[in-house]
Order: sequence, then structure tokens, then C-alpha cells
Amino acid sequence: MAPVTASYQLTTEHKLKHFVVEVLERSGVARAQAEVVADVLVEADMRGIESHGVARLESYYVGRIRSGHLKPRPNYHVVRETPTSIVYDADNGLGHPVSKMAMEAVIAKASEFGAAFGAVRNSNHYGIAGYYAMMALEHDMIGMSSTNSVKYAAATFGREVVLGTNPFAFAVPAGNEPAFVLDFATTTVPKGKLEVHKRKKKKLESGWAIDADGNMTYDPDEALRGALLPLGGFGTEGGGHKGFGMGLLADILCGVLSGGCFGPTLPFADQTKEGAISHWFGAFRIDAFRDVDEFKADVDVELRYFKESSAARGAQRIMVAGEPEILKAAYHRQYGIPVHAKVWDGLQRLSSELDVPFDLAR
Amino acid sequence: MAPVTASYQLTTEHKLKHFVVEVLERSGVARAQAEVVADVLVEADMRGIESHGVARLESYYVGRIRSGHLKPRPNYHVVRETPTSIVYDADNGLGHPVSKMAMEAVIAKASEFGAAFGAVRNSNHYGIAGYYAMMALEHDMIGMSSTNSVKYAAATFGREVVLGTNPFAFAVPAGNEPAFVLDFATTTVPKGKLEVHKRKKKKLESGWAIDADGNMTYDPDEALRGALLPLGGFGTEGGGHKGFGMGLLADILCGVLSGGCFGPTLPFADQTKEGAISHWFGAFRIDAFRDVDEFKADVDVELRYFKESSAARGAQRIMVAGEPEILKAAYHRQYGIPVHAKVWDGLQRLSSELDVPFDLAR
Repeated sequence: MAPVTASYQLTTEHKLKHFVVEVLERSGVARAQAEVVADVLVEADMRGIESHGVARLESYYVGRIRSGHLKPRPNYHVVRETPTSIVYDADNGLGHPVSKMAMEAVIAKASEFGAAFGAVRNSNHYGIAGYYAMMALEHDMIGMSSTNSVKYAAATFGREVVLGTNPFAFAVPAGNEPAFVLDFATTTVPKGKLEVHKRKKKKLESGWAIDADGNMTYDPDEALRGALLPLGGFGTEGGGHKGFGMGLLADILCGVLSGGCFGPTLPFADQTKEGAISHWFGAFRIDAFRDVDEFKADVDVELRYFKESSAARGAQRIMVAGEPEILKAAYHRQYGIPVHAKVWDGLQRLSSELDVPFDLAR
Repeated sequence: MAPVTASYQLTTEHKLKHFVVEVLERSGVARAQAEVVADVLVEADMRGIESHGVARLESYYVGRIRSGHLKPRPNYHVVRETPTSIVYDADNGLGHPVSKMAMEAVIAKASEFGAAFGAVRNSNHYGIAGYYAMMALEHDMIGMSSTNSVKYAAATFGREVVLGTNPFAFAVPAGNEPAFVLDFATTTVPKGKLEVHKRKKKKLESGWAIDADGNMTYDPDEALRGALLPLGGFGTEGGGHKGFGMGLLADILCGVLSGGCFGPTLPFADQTKEGAISHWFGAFRIDAFRDVDEFKADVDVELRYFKESSAARGAQRIMVAGEPEILKAAYHRQYGIPVHAKVWDGLQRLSSELDVPFDLAR
């Protein structure tokens, strides 16, 4: 569970969503689109993925609208469409509404034809990849999504910052068990983890980052001047080339396939550049393979097999992908969503600057 | 390059394929199917993936046919088919011919409808996953494949052997650059790597394996009584939960989706059980997203961006997925394919036992 200490304030799902909608609308975003953004951001906070929730509202979303680097009223438009594919240009608008539209189209097409894919280019941060993959669940489909991001990471044996954290998400419906939802960055850790360790004056773990010369480093300051490492860590001994390959695959599926920015044209994290992010979506029907009820019953058997298997000495029990987030969401629904004091301060600033009532306390 | 020392013999692609076909035909496999198996196995040896090549011919493929655990003349049959999906039952036959049929069907369906998926159940080892993903390349599609395997690996924080090495492969066509071919096990290393380290009396690396209590171990003997770790290593600090999630996803996409064996019903490595392996395939058309020539030109730009980026101090240069295998294949075409002396002895045994002329020396 997220630590609820003096440095956290508690709010509720409903209040937080309402606040985000109001803030975005006052910033010029159409209400229907603001509601999608609020839904995605608060879902991240509910699931305990603070880094992808309202923590980004002031600094990223509203900040970029204010600085003119993100259009509050974009002209989202389809640039190619076939019976089983759709490609959107997001016109440098918010990533969430256009991504939801794209995934809805992919699901509708997969519903008719069995399988479909989609992509979005010239977009911005779209929140948690898992949100879009999970949209497939209620349609008895397997959903997938990926996005590229601004560059933070190095290639295996590289020293340059060449790659985003480029997550992949896959969602598989279960019967009585919570759905299997795998949502992971293809770097070992996110950039934010280096910053947290710097603040706490803690050494980094092995395989997280390199310094500017490409040597593995345990020093957060050196790492922040260097680059994140791909999942699998430094070199190839722990499989770092696998994480690098997945990150590059994400950049191809998102950036190259959509006709958007990729590799050399993707911005670095400290640049403010217009709509350079791309996303990728997919879905296919389970009943194209076997009866849905039988499938879901077997997914239950599968997930329970892992959850009930013996834990290592000292560990409590095995968790499967999606389970920690489901547990956190249930906890936060009951006891409130913790918002870090710094983020809370930012929300208060937005409240007074945009004249939105600050009714967030639980 | 594979070490060509006294413990290796050299052969050629043509001679090796011919020999494998003859051996399998004498073992009761239909010639057309034997040719597919030979093509997949020798492709692995060509690409330097010895563990998945003819090294398995005697012990696994012929061995299982002889012991009655694999049918040389199976009744491969379709159990479900839609315009964008196909599911085969392999009837405990060789995995390669039925997998090639399934991927051919997936490509034909994707050619007509834009995107398609397939699965095979009750199968056996199908060789390198990349072979099937790469079949999509000449059709200007992105190809993917996965397979589950007998169990070698633990869950994150687990102590039991619950999961196969469950690879994923993705293939993306390029223009002038070699195709991007990512083919990786979702464990940090294969089981064979523990055995090699035991033989050489070398310590294992961090994140490779646990002992029978679930503690990380550097001792090959302890590891061989324990389990492999998922990509990302021990616990969650290096992202082990991501590798575990991918391995479990593979088991769902292959075993559960096909209606085959998965998790609890999958055999352990030391069991000899009939056709318990399942595979998964997918393909989609690039021109459903953008013009193929533009896409390929941009994939070239993308791959060169990484290959030409600066290497870490002490490293030579950056390689992208698929590149080491292309280089090895070119080298082996020129100078011969190295076959380990132990494997060579096995091929000689097969030659005399099955009365197949041993004409393998380069």
C-alpha cells in the first residue's frame, strides 16, 4: 500500500476526477475530452501508479498547454483506415482522448473481423498503457498497447541516451480471478526512481543506470547525467539486450509504424517539443480460438496455480501481474487515494490560478 | 562467431539439411515434414543458436519417436478457424511442420483481412520462435510467435519450478538493413547455460537462478536443483516481475488460448510426456498503417540510428536484434557450420543406426 504519512493527503476517486475535469476545462480542453484524461489519470492513482497520475497534471499537461507546447483543442483525425486498422494523427493534443478513440475503433474492428490494430502519432503522454489494454477485457478480447516516450535510456553497450522507457501492456480476461494485466516499462526502472534515490541519498541497485561514459553506476548523480538501462541490466549477461530489443520494438511499432517521430527525431526528456509521442494498440477475440467461458475458467486455474505455488524462504506469496494494482485500488476505494504533499500543493496552485474550487479532502 | 576449435566439426547448410531429412524419414516422418524440421533446425545452427539446432536431433526428436512419446505420422488437424484465426491440434507430432502450416495460414488470413492470429496445441518443441515470426517478412508484414516449454523456471519470489523458458519473437522488415528480428526467452538464461557453467566449474552470474529454497544462488549444482529466474532476475528490484509476467503471458497465449496444456498440466523438464507444448502466432500488414516503402526506409533510419550511436567505453559498437544472427549466418555460409563434437558423435550414431550415409564433413 502507498504510505499514508504526514507527507500525503487523502482524497477520493470522485472528487479527484471532478477536479481534474474542471482544471482541464478551464485550461481550454473540451469537457468530454477532459473527462477521459481525468479517468485515465485517476485510474493510475487508484492503482498505485502515482508517477502516471495527477502528479503530472500541473507540470506536464496544464504546463504544456500554458507554454503553447500542447494544443487544448486539437484536430484529432484519421490518416489511414482499413477494416482491421486505424491510424490517428493527434495534432499535438492530449494523448488520452485520441488513444481511447483509437482503442475503441480497434475493439469495434476486432469485434467484427476478429483482430485489429491501431496507432496514433503526433501525440503526447497517454498515461498508463494498461488503461487501453484493459478496455478489451469487457469485450472478451485480449488487449495490448505500447507507447514510446521521450528519451531516457541507453542501448545495450551504448553510452548515449537513445530510447524511451517504452512500456508494453497486455490484458487478458479471467473468470472469478482478477484479470491478468501486465504493464511494464522496458527499462529496468523509471527515471523517477533515480531522483527518489538521489533525494534519499541512497545507492542505486545493479542494472539500473550508466554514467555518461557508459559504465554501470550506483551513484544517482552520475546516473542522472548518464542514462537508464534496458530491462535485464548492463551488457548481455543479465539479458539487457532483451530489454533493449523490446524498447526498440516499441519505438518501431509506435513511432515508425504510425509515421510519427522515432529514434533520432524523438525529443530528450529536457526538451519541450511538440507532439512527438506515438502509441500502438491491438485486440483480438478470444472466441476466435476457443469458447470464452472455458478460456476464462482455465485462466482462473492458471492464475491460481501461480498464486498458490510455494514462496521463497522469507517471501510471503506469489503475485501475478495486475494483482498488486487490484489490491491497491480496492484499498484506495475504501480508505482514500493518497496524494503526495508536493502534488497536493500543485493542485492547490491550479485551484487558485484557474478559479476551480479546491474540494479534494476526503 | 562460434568457436571453431578441436571440439567442433564443420559442415555445410546443404549437407546438414539433407542428413536431417534422411534421419527423420528413416525414423518414420513423411519426407515433406522432415524437410520443414530440417529447415528450422539448420536455420538455428546457421544463426548460431546451437541449442535449438541439430543438437536436439538425436536426444529429443528421434529419441522421442523411438520411445513412443512423439508420433512420426501425426494427424495434424484444425480445431477452430475463423477468417482471422486458426487453431491446430498437433496430435503429439513434430512441432515444426504444424507450426509452419499455422503461420502460413495466419499470413494468408492477414493478407486478406489485414491481421490474424493462430495457435497450436498438443505439440512438441518447434525450434526457434524467430523462424515463424520471420515468415511474415517477405509478405511485408510484422510477424510474431511464442511457445511455452517444459518447466524450468520459478515465479518472482517463488521457490517452485512453475514456468517454461517461454520465448517471444517479433520480426519487422527493413529496407537495406537486415530485418529486425527479436527472439528471446523470458528467463534470464536457458537451462543449458547452467550446465555449461557446471562443466566449466564457473560461478553463475547474479539473477540467473535460485536454489531449492528460493534463494539466489551462484552455484551451478544448487541452481540445477533449484530453478531458473525470469528475465530481470531475483525479486523485483531488477524487474524480475516483468520477466515473470511475460513468461506467464506466453503460457496463456500458447497453452490456455489453444486449449492445450499450461501451468499445472505442463510437464517438468525431466518428465517424458506426450505433446504438451503449445505455440502462438500473429501477423499484420504494414500497409494497413502506412506505405510499405516509406515504412522500410524509416526502419532503416531507425536501425542505423542505434547501430551508429556511441558505444560505452570498452565496448565496440551497438548491435540491434537480429544483427548478430545475420552476421553468424553469413560467416557460417562462408566457412561452414560448426557442430560440437558431442553432437557430431550423436549424428554419427544416428547414421549407423538408421543406415543414413554420413556425408557431413565440409
